[in-house]
Amino acid sequence: MKQNIYDNNTFFEKYKELRAREHNYNNLLEQPNFFTLIPTLQNKVVLDIGCGMGDFAAYCVTQGAKHVTGFDISSNMIANAKKRHIHEGLTFERSAFEDVTVSEGTIDFVSSSLAFHYIADYQLLIKKISKALCEEGVLLFSIEHPIVTANKGKESWITNEEGNLLHFAVDNYQYEGLRTQNWIVDNVIMYHRTMSTILNTLIENGLQIEKVIEPIPAKEAVCNLPSLDKEFRRPSFVIIRAKKIVNK
Amino acid sequence: MKQNIYDNNTFFEKYKELRAREHNYNNLLEQPNFFTLIPTLQNKVVLDIGCGMGDFAAYCVTQGAKHVTGFDISSNMIANAKKRHIHEGLTFERSAFEDVTVSEGTIDFVSSSLAFHYIADYQLLIKKISKALCEEGVLLFSIEHPIVTANKGKESWITNEEGNLLHFAVDNYQYEGLRTQNWIVDNVIMYHRTMSTILNTLIENGLQIEKVIEPIPAKEAVCNLPSLDKEFRRPSFVIIRAKKIVNK
Repeated sequence: MKQNIYDNNTFFEKYKELRAREHNYNNLLEQPNFFTLIPTLQNKVVLDIGCGMGDFAAYCVTQGAKHVTGFDISSNMIANAKKRHIHEGLTFERSAFEDVTVSEGTIDFVSSSLAFHYIADYQLLIKKISKALCEEGVLLFSIEHPIVTANKGKESWITNEEGNLLHFAVDNYQYEGLRTQNWIVDNVIMYHRTMSTILNTLIENGLQIEKVIEPIPAKEAVCNLPSLDKEFRRPSFVIIRAKKIVNK
Repeated sequence: MKQNIYDNNTFFEKYKELRAREHNYNNLLEQPNFFTLIPTLQNKVVLDIGCGMGDFAAYCVTQGAKHVTGFDISSNMIANAKKRHIHEGLTFERSAFEDVTVSEGTIDFVSSSLAFHYIADYQLLIKKISKALCEEGVLLFSIEHPIVTANKGKESWITNEEGNLLHFAVDNYQYEGLRTQNWIVDNVIMYHRTMSTILNTLIENGLQIEKVIEPIPAKEAVCNLPSLDKEFRRPSFVIIRAKKIVNK
């Protein structure tokens, strides 16, 4: 069964609180970098995987996208998305993308922000995305960095007796698969994959890598959220843009 | 001035000793993976950057390469290469590849094993390689993994009081540039780059990424060299194959 942590109401309320904060890792670190890689959206057909409360899907419509479908496995998320964003170019669907049927070669842009590390079968996911994309179609996604997911749930930042951070602990890097962590609530499930698996799976499915970003916060962001200075010591996220190539 | 540690005679003698061991990281971990990505060599013009004692250059000739030029900045290495391998299809040259002039689009295959982390200007290096490669030409190189180079010269494996390895220490990941380490002798210079810099520089220079390997040792290799079991906990190397694409 797929984990559906966002339908745990304790989790969901605390998550909304976290995301509502003006200064968080999403809007100061991940999103500014993610946005630099968005392709032209005018008249495009878009899928957003793990759409959450639908803000990115709605943004795509404001940028001229013809139609955007947002998928999320959480009914809490989809209910919020439908309430927040009403537009004829927008559809929100409570489904895991792995279970959905999409016509081959019909999608111009597939986006996903910090959702792929919750999906167990990455091979199947990328295969389905590649099949859905038209020629020259773009996949843009962000995920937790393998440096961070490798030893998730175990030691991360090591401190000395005074509580100063000494370094970040990496371990179990080559053992891919399930990790559990305590984030907001206990035992949130996610999946670790190596950088090579993340990249090679794209390539093997006809997706040519165009850009890889390991985000660094802007100076101003660190002023607003000082804990972001840790991002210079190890990357939290990786953002990848790839283009569908059809071999002729 | 470019570092030329292999012309330090103490270093060179100890290095030769290390490489002469039947079981080492090169022949049990890096080389077996590197070899899986070598393109067809029949009639190909090849450059080997950081050719060392010339064994790989000589191998290419045995596989039908038309001509192989090996570059190394160490006169010790080039002297050894010339002594070990005499063949009309082989040239060894004591030069930094960055300083060499190569005719545009004349090379089929550029290889480099564990040398790029010694080169200060990676941008220039990749630009020159891309220019030298013909259309569909292949670059194959291995380097120390950014996880390892990030905090090089400082803490690496953290142990408990009993001497057991607890985890690998990552720090300073986003600070690219010079690192010094004590390997065989003191103060060997190398350069850290992030994974995104390594990959994006290829892409920006028209080199399409075909495969990324973070090598894992075979079971038999771990039997022969038990310290290789650490490779499951963090990768030592990354091996990348890329293909020159000419936009028409």
